[in-house]
Formats: sequence, C-alpha cells, structure tokens
Amino acid sequence: MFNSLGNLLRLTTFGESHGPAIGGILDGFPAGIRVDVDKIYQQLARRKPGQSDLTTSRQEEDKVEFLSGIKDDISTGHSIGFLVRNTNQKSEDYTHLENVFRPSHADFTYQEKYGIRDVRGGGRASARETTNWVIGGTIAKQLIPDIQISSFVSSVENIAYNYDTDATDLTLIESNSVRCPDNNIAKEMIAAIEKAKTDGDSVGGTITCVIKKVPIGLGEPIFHKLEAELAKAMLSINACKGFEIGSGFSGASMRGSAHNDIWLEKGKTATNHSGGIQGGISNGMEIVFRLAFKPTSTIMQNQATINNQNELITLEGKGRHDPCVLPRAVPIVDALTAFVLADMFLMSKTRANF
Amino acid sequence: MFNSLGNLLRLTTFGESHGPAIGGILDGFPAGIRVDVDKIYQQLARRKPGQSDLTTSRQEEDKVEFLSGIKDDISTGHSIGFLVRNTNQKSEDYTHLENVFRPSHADFTYQEKYGIRDVRGGGRASARETTNWVIGGTIAKQLIPDIQISSFVSSVENIAYNYDTDATDLTLIESNSVRCPDNNIAKEMIAAIEKAKTDGDSVGGTITCVIKKVPIGLGEPIFHKLEAELAKAMLSINACKGFEIGSGFSGASMRGSAHNDIWLEKGKTATNHSGGIQGGISNGMEIVFRLAFKPTSTIMQNQATINNQNELITLEGKGRHDPCVLPRAVPIVDALTAFVLADMFLMSKTRANF
Amino acid sequence: MFNSLGNLLRLTTFGESHGPAIGGILDGFPAGIRVDVDKIYQQLARRKPGQSDLTTSRQEEDKVEFLSGIKDDISTGHSIGFLVRNTNQKSEDYTHLENVFRPSHADFTYQEKYGIRDVRGGGRASARETTNWVIGGTIAKQLIPDIQISSFVSSVENIAYNYDTDATDLTLIESNSVRCPDNNIAKEMIAAIEKAKTDGDSVGGTITCVIKKVPIGLGEPIFHKLEAELAKAMLSINACKGFEIGSGFSGASMRGSAHNDIWLEKGKTATNHSGGIQGGISNGMEIVFRLAFKPTSTIMQNQATINNQNELITLEGKGRHDPCVLPRAVPIVDALTAFVLADMFLMSKTRANF
Amino acid sequence: MFNSLGNLLRLTTFGESHGPAIGGILDGFPAGIRVDVDKIYQQLARRKPGQSDLTTSRQEEDKVEFLSGIKDDISTGHSIGFLVRNTNQKSEDYTHLENVFRPSHADFTYQEKYGIRDVRGGGRASARETTNWVIGGTIAKQLIPDIQISSFVSSVENIAYNYDTDATDLTLIESNSVRCPDNNIAKEMIAAIEKAKTDGDSVGGTITCVIKKVPIGLGEPIFHKLEAELAKAMLSINACKGFEIGSGFSGASMRGSAHNDIWLEKGKTATNHSGGIQGGISNGMEIVFRLAFKPTSTIMQNQATINNQNELITLEGKGRHDPCVLPRAVPIVDALTAFVLADMFLMSKTRANF
Repeated sequence: MFNSLGNLLRLTTFGESHGPAIGGILDGFPAGIRVDVDKIYQQLARRKPGQSDLTTSRQEEDKVEFLSGIKDDISTGHSIGFLVRNTNQKSEDYTHLENVFRPSHADFTYQEKYGIRDVRGGGRASARETTNWVIGGTIAKQLIPDIQISSFVSSVENIAYNYDTDATDLTLIESNSVRCPDNNIAKEMIAAIEKAKTDGDSVGGTITCVIKKVPIGLGEPIFHKLEAELAKAMLSINACKGFEIGSGFSGASMRGSAHNDIWLEKGKTATNHSGGIQGGISNGMEIVFRLAFKPTSTIMQNQATINNQNELITLEGKGRHDPCVLPRAVPIVDALTAFVLADMFLMSKTRANF
Repeated sequence: MFNSLGNLLRLTTFGESHGPAIGGILDGFPAGIRVDVDKIYQQLARRKPGQSDLTTSRQEEDKVEFLSGIKDDISTGHSIGFLVRNTNQKSEDYTHLENVFRPSHADFTYQEKYGIRDVRGGGRASARETTNWVIGGTIAKQLIPDIQISSFVSSVENIAYNYDTDATDLTLIESNSVRCPDNNIAKEMIAAIEKAKTDGDSVGGTITCVIKKVPIGLGEPIFHKLEAELAKAMLSINACKGFEIGSGFSGASMRGSAHNDIWLEKGKTATNHSGGIQGGISNGMEIVFRLAFKPTSTIMQNQATINNQNELITLEGKGRHDPCVLPRAVPIVDALTAFVLADMFLMSKTRANF
Repeated sequence: MFNSLGNLLRLTTFGESHGPAIGGILDGFPAGIRVDVDKIYQQLARRKPGQSDLTTSRQEEDKVEFLSGIKDDISTGHSIGFLVRNTNQKSEDYTHLENVFRPSHADFTYQEKYGIRDVRGGGRASARETTNWVIGGTIAKQLIPDIQISSFVSSVENIAYNYDTDATDLTLIESNSVRCPDNNIAKEMIAAIEKAKTDGDSVGGTITCVIKKVPIGLGEPIFHKLEAELAKAMLSINACKGFEIGSGFSGASMRGSAHNDIWLEKGKTATNHSGGIQGGISNGMEIVFRLAFKPTSTIMQNQATINNQNELITLEGKGRHDPCVLPRAVPIVDALTAFVLADMFLMSKTRANF
Repeated sequence: MFNSLGNLLRLTTFGESHGPAIGGILDGFPAGIRVDVDKIYQQLARRKPGQSDLTTSRQEEDKVEFLSGIKDDISTGHSIGFLVRNTNQKSEDYTHLENVFRPSHADFTYQEKYGIRDVRGGGRASARETTNWVIGGTIAKQLIPDIQISSFVSSVENIAYNYDTDATDLTLIESNSVRCPDNNIAKEMIAAIEKAKTDGDSVGGTITCVIKKVPIGLGEPIFHKLEAELAKAMLSINACKGFEIGSGFSGASMRGSAHNDIWLEKGKTATNHSGGIQGGISNGMEIVFRLAFKPTSTIMQNQATINNQNELITLEGKGRHDPCVLPRAVPIVDALTAFVLADMFLMSKTRANF
C-alpha cells in the first residue's frame, strides 16, 4: 500500500540510493503484450545523470534485469519483477551529513517519522527511485501504443516557452539538452542553468505534458478522475510543487462565457480550457497539464541549518548535484503519465456493457 | 474502488442529483470517538445553496440520517452509514437537456463512457455529491481535533488576497459571504461576482487552505506523499483545475539559495516555501496549499453546442446556478483536507516502533 | 477496507441489527446491465426469517430501497446504494444481556476490541448483515447470467446427503423447507431440526455449492486463486467453520494416482477431484465446494457464562431464534458465490491480450 | 493487486520456477524492528527440497539477498525488497511437456487464461513461489514475537494424529522428518510416504496449526474476519483443498448445547470449539485450524492426458518430485499464519480509542 502506485496496474517499488539495488514489481500487466526493452533503455538514458553539462556528473549504469513475467519479449500475464544494481555510489560523500538536517530535504521528516534513516544519498528519499518509475511506466506505455505522450521543459527560472497546439513542434524536444521544443528559448534556458551552476546555485522551472490520441472515456468520475490520478502521480515526483490541467490557475481569473469549451462535433471543442478532461473523463481532445518544480535543494553554497542535537550549524556545499532537475524530470513525467493512462485504460475495460 | 476515497479511512459514496437520495459509508473510523453532529450541520450550512445572494437560489434541506456506527454520540468502530434525501429537485428543468451535450460539462463524456446517463441535475456528476464529502470529512475531522484547518477564498476573477502567516486573521473568514479573511477585498470580490451574475456570466477564482498544528510525521513517502494525497482529493472537486503547495508555481522561477527553508530548530524553518511538507511528510510548519477553480460552466447566456446526433444547436441559458462556486467550495476543501489528514494519521499509527 | 468485499466489484456495507437501517454500496458494477429487482426479492424471501417452522418466528420486511446507480432497470455504471429499514425489532429482549458475554457469540470480543458495543440483537455481529450480502450478490449475479449456482443443505446433524453430479436433481432444492434436493432425506433433516427445537437446542450441518457453466479462466493465480476468494467469502458467513473444494478433506487420504483428474478433452476431465479449479483458475468443469456450519449459539436452555465484571452467572435461554441456520444460509451462499464469480469475471476482463 | 497478499502489511511477489530469480517486496513493515536473518534461513531450511528422503532430491540454494528496508538488522520503515536466484534448474526436464496438459496441474488453465505460459518447472504455478512466502512471513513474524505458531503434519494418507491441547508436545515437531509431534505415529507416516514413493505414487494429508498467546482483538468483523483471512491465505497454498477452524466439519454434526464454549473467565472458555475466534476476532484462547492437502499431482506412473491439439496422449512419469508435500508445507503454513496475524495486528492498531 505504501510503496505502490496504481489501481489495476500496480507498481510496487523498493530501494535506497546507496543500497545494493533498487527495483520493483509491475503487477496487473496483461498477457500477450510485446515488451520492447530498448524503449526502456531509451527512456532511462533520458533520465540518466551525466548525459550533458546541465546534469550531475554522477554516472549510473542503470542496467535493468528483468526477472519474471516476460517470455521471449512477450508478457505472460504474471508480475514483472525488475532490478537495477546500484553502482558508483560514493557513500563516504555523506558521512558529514549523518547527524545533519539539510534544508528542504527529507532528512528531518524521515528521522522524526521512523526514528532511523539511511543517510547515504538520501536513502529512500533519493530521486534514484524514479529509475523504477521510468522502467514501470515505459513498460506500461507499451499497453497503450497509440497514445502519444510528449513532456517538455516549458520554463526555467524566468525563461518560459508557451505551448501552442498548432505551432509547437513536439518532435524537437530532444533536439537540445534542456528538452524544450524551441531551440532559441532552449539556449536561454541552458544559459540560465549554467549561470546558476557557476553561482553554486540551482534553478526551478515547469514541465508541460501534452497527450494526443487519447481514447474518449478514460478516467473514473468522483474519486478517480483522470486529472486527480495524474495530479497524485505527478506530486509524487521529488521537487514537484504544483499541478494544473487545461486553463489551470489562469482559468481562475476567467469568466465562464470565455472559458467554456464549445462543442464543434463529438470529441472536438473550439477551445480546450478543459485540458481534454471533463467530469474526470477524457473527452477526445488533447490532454495538457503543467507542473511546477522547485529549484534543487542541494546547492554549492554554505547554508545555516541544524543537527540532530538541535544545534545551529553551517552546512558546507559540496558533492555532485543537478543545478536544475527539469531536463531529467521530463522522462519521469512521460513515464508516470503513461502509467496512469494504462491503469485507467485497464479500469475502463471493466466498465463496458458486456 | 471507483467511488471510494482514502486508504485506511475510506469514504464510499453514492447518489445522483435527482435520485431519491445521496449518501455514503465512512469505514475505518476508530471506536470511542465523540461525533458531534452539530459540527456536521455547521459545515453543511456553509456548503448549502441559497445561503446568500452569491449562490444559487435552490434550496436543499440536507437533513442527514446517521444509520450506523454511532451509539450515544460515540463511534463504535463499525462502518458509519449516512443518507441525505434529495428534495426540491426540479427535474423538469432538465428535459430540454436530454439529448444535449452542454459545454464544459460531463454530459458528453458520461454518455460516451457508459452509454447511458441520468440527465437530471447532472446525475452523478452534480456537485450535489460534495454533500457526502462534507459529511464524511467533518466526521473525520473529529479524529484529529487539534489540527486547525482554515480554507478561504483567495481570489475571484482578478481580485486577489495574498495570505500572510503573521498578518492574516483566519477568524475573519466567516465574516463575509464570500469567505475571504479581508473584508475590504471581500467587498470587491462580491462586487465582481454580482457583476458576473448581472451579465448572466460566471467567474472563477482560487482557494487557499492553511493547516496549523499538524503533527510531524503525517504522509508516506514515495506514493502516498501528503501533498500527493491532498492533490488527488482536491482535483476530485468539481471545477478544480490546479493545485500548488508552498511556493508552488511561483517557486519554479526561484533559485535554490532563496527557496531553501533554513532550519532554525526542530520543526521550525525560517521560511516555508516547502509548505509544511518535506519528502512527502509533514515537518511541523503550517501546511499551505492553493487551488484554482474554473468559472461555473452553467451560464445564463445562449451558447453553441451539439446534441447526441452530432448536430450543432443553440443552448439557452436558464435554470438556477451559482455565478461563482468559490464560497461554497470552502467547506468542501476543509472537509476533504480533514479527511486526508485523518487517513494519514491512521496510517502513521502503523509505522511506529512498537 | 474493513467493511468491503471484493476487488473490482466491491460491496461495502453498514448497519446494526437494531439500528434504524442496514444497507450497502455496490461499486464497480458495469453500465448497461439489466437489474431485475424481483430476483433480489426472491432471494431475500429465501433468507427471510419466519418462512417456515424451521426458522425463527421473527418477521422482517426487508423492503429494499435502491437509491442510485440504476435507471429504468438498467445499471448506469455508478455506485448502487441500497437501504433496508429495520422493523419489528424487540430491543427490550436484549436488556438482560447488556453486561453479559454469551457463549460462542461475539459479545466478548467486540467489547474487548472496541470498548463499546451495541448489545441489541448482536449489533453489527448479527446475521441481519447477510441481508446486504444477498442484495449485493444477487445484483452481481445479473452480470454473469449464464453461470448456474446451486447451493443446498447437504447435511443436518448426522443426516447427510451426498451430491452426485449425474444423479442429483438440483431443481428439487426448493421443493422442501430445508433445501435439500432429496425429499426423503429432507424429511429426516426436518425431523432432526424439529427434535432439536423441542429440546431447546440447535443443530449444525453442511451446505454444498455446485456451480455449472463456469467459463474457463476465472481466478487469478498466487493470491487471488478462485478457491481462496471463495473460502474467504464463505468464512465470512456467521457460523461457517470450514470450507473444502473438490475432494477436500477426503482427498487428503487419497493417493495421487487415484486423485489426479485425467483430461479427456479440453475443459473435460474423467473425475473432478479438483472441484473445477486448477492453479487457482476455473478449468471448465463444475465447481463444487462444501461448507461446515456450527449449531446456532443461541439455545433455549440455561447456560453458565460470565458478565463484564468477570463474574460467573447463569444465562437464561429465551427470545426468538433459528434452531438451525442452514436452510436460510443457502441463499447467502448463493449470493456470495455469485459475488465472487462476478468480481473474478471483471478481473479477467483486464488480463486478456488486446 | 493480483500478486499481493495482505491489507496493511503487503507482500507482493514475482518469479517463475526456471526464470532467473524469484523475490518479493514486503511493504508496510514498521520501522525499528529487529530482523533476524537467521530465523529466515531456519524456516527456508525446513521448506527446502532434499532435506530428507521424504522430499524431492532437487537441491535449491535459496540464498536470499535483502536489497532494501533493513539497515544494520533494523527495519527502516521502507519497503523490504528481497531476491532469491534460481539455480540447479534442469529446464530440459520439461521439454517433453511443452504441449502437454498434465492432469491436476495448472497447465491447461494457464494456457487458456493467458494464451502463453512458461512450461519449465510449472513457471509461476510452481511451489517454488512459496519460498517468497516463507521469507515474507518469517520477517512478518518478527513483528509479533510473543505469538507462538506451531504447525505440524496431523495426517498422511490414513494415518492420523489428533491434536490435544494438554497432551501434545509441540516441541517435538522437528524431532522427525515428517514433522508430526508424535514419533510413533511419525514412523507410520514415513512408512506410508516411502511406500507411495516405491509405488511411484504420492499421498496427501492434513496439517494442523496451533497458535498460542494470541492477543485478544485481532481480526476485523464482517469481511476481514480472522478465520476468513487465514482461510484465504491457506487456500493460496498449492495443493491445499480445505480449511477448518475449531470444531470445523465435525462441529457440523454437533448440537449447540455441546458446541457452545462456556466462559470461565475473560479470555478463557471451558471448551474451544470456536478455535479461538468469535465474531471474526481472536478471543484469547488458542487458535486451531486444520488444512487438507491433496496428493502431489506429479507421479512416477504413466497417465493418460491430452496435448494442446486436444489429442489423447500418454504422459510418462519421470523427473524429481515430492511423494508427499506435507513436511515441506509446514513452514509455509507457519509463515503465512504469521503474515496474516501481523497484518491483523497492524490493522488493530488503527481501531483503538486514541
């Protein structure tokens, strides 16, 4: 229950950053689906540290062992166990943190809640865990091959790119290291990140996710609305501080006459302030949501904080870190989005008239 | 599964707007807790239509029958069944909508998903359902009496009130009909709503929720982060389009050196950009989140739309409606917040060292 | 969680024997299914007290209010709320039991677990609750109309009837008040029950359930084996003390060469010691399981027991009771069986290759 | 959902008999509990093939890797991932079975349900999976150290040992290879198994489980009765065909006046026909239940069966097998019992008056 995501499709995970391995079990995946392992490695490569100057210089191998549930690349209907060994950990980097509560990290809350914690690399709180999500979500994606999910960085610090259904070329997302579909704005974003890095600082930003070719009818009204399930999954991502769908917060200052999406024909509205979901259920339009990410908590500057004796101390900024998590968060958003949609797809299979 | 909220504390609901009754079952509520029914009626009165000129003129009695699980005002540990009869429905108001898909409503998606729908009053998609949530959430609140939950309207259309931990007087929320703790700004908000009403239009806005005296340790890391559970519950509310916690979307343009919440002592940070949650777990600071609500979809203007024959038609604006749902959504936010916290409180009971 | 049965189809219930009402919510029932209310009343009539001299003389009206989820006799895909008012309670019959722990009842365990209990009629522990199960299960049955479920009384005290696939005429179950398909043996069973009643005593017995026309493939291996789900549901029935499938306990003294069910063709074996389930999944043969029921705990004799002061007292035998619960348990077994099969049917919808 | 057991404590597993590994995730295990790995290996040694002449000569190493959730032998409150590599598989032993549906195995049902199956070693249907259960259950046991769980073989074929609370010496269970606490009867049981083995045949039997020092109050009434949860877990064991608690099937032929357990004092009754559970909740007496196991399906004799072309063929008896699974099933019963009790223990933590 605690470490599981999903209703019918369920991903249960384990692993600490500096433990022997991380991994998970994907349960509920139907039989007879082709599972392309290359696609998983493609997504892991996008999440991988060290892929560009923008990201941490840590190297993670991320070799995935698939342990069950797949036979000759076809799912058997049984639980899919997978495992990724942790390598290249430098646990000694964390000895100075053993009794320290870093600002805006999970150190203090973990210690208080459990009375025990694995300091090395943040333990279970590390974003290392999102490797499991990319694996689980990318397998899930293969259940719904026709749905197109495209996340991209839509802002870094104060540099923003506004999505436009007609104008944005989503095929350009991978054309730059920051994963923004506009190469000019991407350059500005990269400069902002590099400037922060030079300053020993970090920056936040936003990610926009666009989902095309969603079948009508995904999502369950009341307590499993599609936007509610997406929000829950996204707010699970480390550093994510906000979720908005369709018009989102900007819709709050609109009037109904301007906000209402007029129907042109079944599955097609003139505007898309609803963001592709009405009454909790996909309506055939593209789904668009946007996420806020705070700046990385680990910075290369000295900071005041406390230790577990409640004494004020100074925390020295050192170690390897991402000055901006946004580019690497893109495949995580893609994966969790796929996971939620696949789960809702399976749920919808049980709602029909037989 | 489909109509249930919560993990250990679970609210399962039923009911259509114009059916004989709505109701629910609150399961997992511990034995031996005093349940004050007056508090439930107080919250229902805040949710009730017709409570001011700002809201729909529909009258709902909302007499709650408690059918089980409470004996002499004390919970028995068994499931609490409750029921509210629907009265004052004017189902004939909906006959002209039988084959119409209203803009930005759930009409089209329900019809496509289920092949059948109850047109009257929106059926199961009606915000009538939120009555169940107020009942369930207000019972849940009585499990965590020390936690203080205060939601208020923080913006209507373009008129905004900014929360300030030190300056805002949360006791003023009920001092005006729009439920904003600043009476001057409240007047402007009321004027904006009345203007929209006069125009046969509707307006959106935001609600801010402040939670004080939260024990350290609520929330489960990974997939039941406290902010993720809150986001899911909130995005379940009709018309809610966005959720942000702490610094939220504004934090996305900040740098880490400014965003990090420096620890002053255990459970106390200099700033609260984290919004009271770190690593998915409450850290002892106040929890602050903000919600975006779109303008009500039902407006008193003619609109273009389609019918179930896929023909373009004109929908006449008529019936009873709220030009702005925000004031009535405040107790719903309060109730769902209480529900999530009570659920997490029970979960945390199982995590301790025995 | 606590008061819910099922995975995808979920029945959540509430209600005490002498509270205002009992009821439940059936969630996950697909849209577009015809729900025949008469069939529900037929099953309730079979469960009803006072239907013959064999059962308690209490009269229960069992008028069911369907509150949601059904429109013009067709399911809408939303949660089905239902309610049965309690009438004809004689709560004063229980005042002498307020501080007494009756032998082999739930009095003591409820008091210890919750610190509070509703003494009247056994409160939540009353078999009154099974009314909810008959309603929920009989609705569930309408999702799987082709499957034939036939439970019957296979023994009372020492009088046994042995089921024979070829010889037993299941259409005779309703031809006598004890619900045994052999009228001669039924007479002996009735005599045994009447003798016990005359003695102020009670008797136990067994129920056999035969399920024909089960599609191949129901049941999930590992932790949702069809027999495990059935066992769990059946052991939930008050007074049920044992479950066996196929050869059951008699199979424990057999050798493999005699026990193995030789395949004659797909879906057909020479014997059926497996009871229609292999590897947790239905194999196309008829499913046969058998249940043990203890004799009713309430008897019309004086018994020694203790009160809540831990003092030895004498409990006087009085009130209305069933000397044998078996005949009335038959429709409960039918209903829960249907519920489990319908749930597994929905689960199997998500396992196929799309 | 499909491969998970438990409510608050949840074991999710994966793995096929001849895949690279089996394993699982134990979620919900509280922080701060000492986990003694030696105890796990002790139980695995009892489950291990090849431990005596009574069991299969296959050798399994069962080296467990603990991958997370435990730090310096103390649980951290996070999910516990574990892994056991499969070694010593002889997959070529199964090539002759590729298209064959063995009698009373899961071959046919798996093939029909999933359209694909791993023939080698029975794949996911193999009792190899129970290794995961022993690991998960033995960790769970360490949450409830005071409860004493003692399972033993109570019959093999027609040789039975009757448990007697006062006379049976449960410390003798391990004093013989068949795990019966009476060494004389154990010798007869062993002879019966050896005779069956000589005949190329197999035998069934029963296991009795006795649980002492159970706290009052475990189990949730209605749908999570302690006996229902136990029954579900036990019927999940391969070859288990029946479950009875307390008087069980023999109680079905008793009268109430003899069956009722008279209270002597709180938590103590004169007899224990209830088997330590009343109203679904433990009452302080010892819990006793009994399980039926069918004879192993794999025998060393030729048998008629069909292949996937629906043709009648002869299946040759060969390979390594247990002529009787009972001795090795004892630690599995112990482990699952511990798991259910620990889960119910955690659930009960949320039911109390705070």
